Amino acid sequence: MPRYSITIEYDGTPFVGWQIQRDSATVQGAIVSAIQKFSGETVKVQGAGRTDAGVHACGQVAHFDLRREWNPYRVGEAINYHLRPAPVGILECRRVPDRFDARFSATKRHYLYRILCRRAPAALERNRVWRVSTPLDTNTMHDAAQVLIGQHDFTTFRAAACQALSPIKTLDSLNVFERCGETHIEASARSFLHNQVRSLAGSLKAVGAGKWSKADLKHALDKADRSACASVAPACGLYLMSIDYPETALN
Amino acid sequence: MPRYSITIEYDGTPFVGWQIQRDSATVQGAIVSAIQKFSGETVKVQGAGRTDAGVHACGQVAHFDLRREWNPYRVGEAINYHLRPAPVGILECRRVPDRFDARFSATKRHYLYRILCRRAPAALERNRVWRVSTPLDTNTMHDAAQVLIGQHDFTTFRAAACQALSPIKTLDSLNVFERCGETHIEASARSFLHNQVRSLAGSLKAVGAGKWSKADLKHALDKADRSACASVAPACGLYLMSIDYPETALN
Repeated sequence: MPRYSITIEYDGTPFVGWQIQRDSATVQGAIVSAIQKFSGETVKVQGAGRTDAGVHACGQVAHFDLRREWNPYRVGEAINYHLRPAPVGILECRRVPDRFDARFSATKRHYLYRILCRRAPAALERNRVWRVSTPLDTNTMHDAAQVLIGQHDFTTFRAAACQALSPIKTLDSLNVFERCGETHIEASARSFLHNQVRSLAGSLKAVGAGKWSKADLKHALDKADRSACASVAPACGLYLMSIDYPETALN
Repeated sequence: MPRYSITIEYDGTPFVGWQIQRDSATVQGAIVSAIQKFSGETVKVQGAGRTDAGVHACGQVAHFDLRREWNPYRVGEAINYHLRPAPVGILECRRVPDRFDARFSATKRHYLYRILCRRAPAALERNRVWRVSTPLDTNTMHDAAQVLIGQHDFTTFRAAACQALSPIKTLDSLNVFERCGETHIEASARSFLHNQVRSLAGSLKAVGAGKWSKADLKHALDKADRSACASVAPACGLYLMSIDYPETALN
């Protein structure tokens, strides 16, 4: 059966998360329903990553199979038409080989965490950023973040509910910088533990606010104990930005 | 009586506009109500500019008088507290001289119009941009825009309901450029006619899409006839960014 991949943008606010659930609004469920409306087929839509309730995506990727051979441009247009009014948009749809798997072919996942530092509540960026009222030292955050790069046991930065077989992950990059008046944290790795980026963001915020030193962050990592993590940052600041695939999987 | 000025950010989506109206949600009404809740006083809040339903602000300015002398920082915090959950935030509050008038002391107003060019609907930026499905030539738009700079009769780019005494305005700058994957139009002038920026944005979009030439834009201006304007751009892409005041008005 022909396989299609889609690149998806969504506002995570009204959803209980990516993963389909009975009687709750999910991104996966909205897409499955839209595909059914134009094709008449009930498909399994496999996403590259499960995002939690309130987490956004600019470049989530998913794949699915249809019995019929469709023009992929028309598939994207049809899904967008039937997704309305859900805040989900298909940015691209392409035909991919049967060996392509949105989850297992991925070689890297890129996340962004946005923090708005100011006293006033976020009006325009409500549900889009973590608004914190204490100033953050971005340079100190970036410097401290570098102790987390590489292969580590990330148990400290892992949700209790995490289903990964091992807490050992390799963090390829973790950059903290200012952009457009906000503090941005960019994290890239082949894969992440459940809540890992939000846990890292919460602990880096403690560093930026002067509560934690770089040594405290290293110590928290080394303890490999969930209770050593600072408060987990809220979902609304997190964005799944893009996924990397090897050419051989796509063509 | 002590006079205070406030700088305001708001999401215009849930409001029928800035200007207070009985039985409708307005930004001015929300602020008047919040001030009353902490001070017990019913004040007149004078804004620098009236924004229409759906139009946003990053830096609207307003002034009001209170009988009591308050710490302006506390005034800003108190208004923010009582504004909740309305998507309005007071970014700054300061004591200003009695001669300061948010509307009449203003020497320049700066607006931004955001256009997102793509086929997919805006999911994350819904109600924040004008999503157009045709590609726009930004350089051509910027070049054409320069025919509008200076003092002109802007009747073509004026709402039928506009209450200004004269259609003659001086446009100081009108710049079109790409930023973060969007087409941005920045317009600055001492004052604008009702719907002027949205009318200009709509006509510049016609230029960018290749429907209008630079000469067509000039011709539309010269006709000084509302019917010569292209379709007015929607409210959701428009932002009142900031207002300039002379030092002598503020201190």
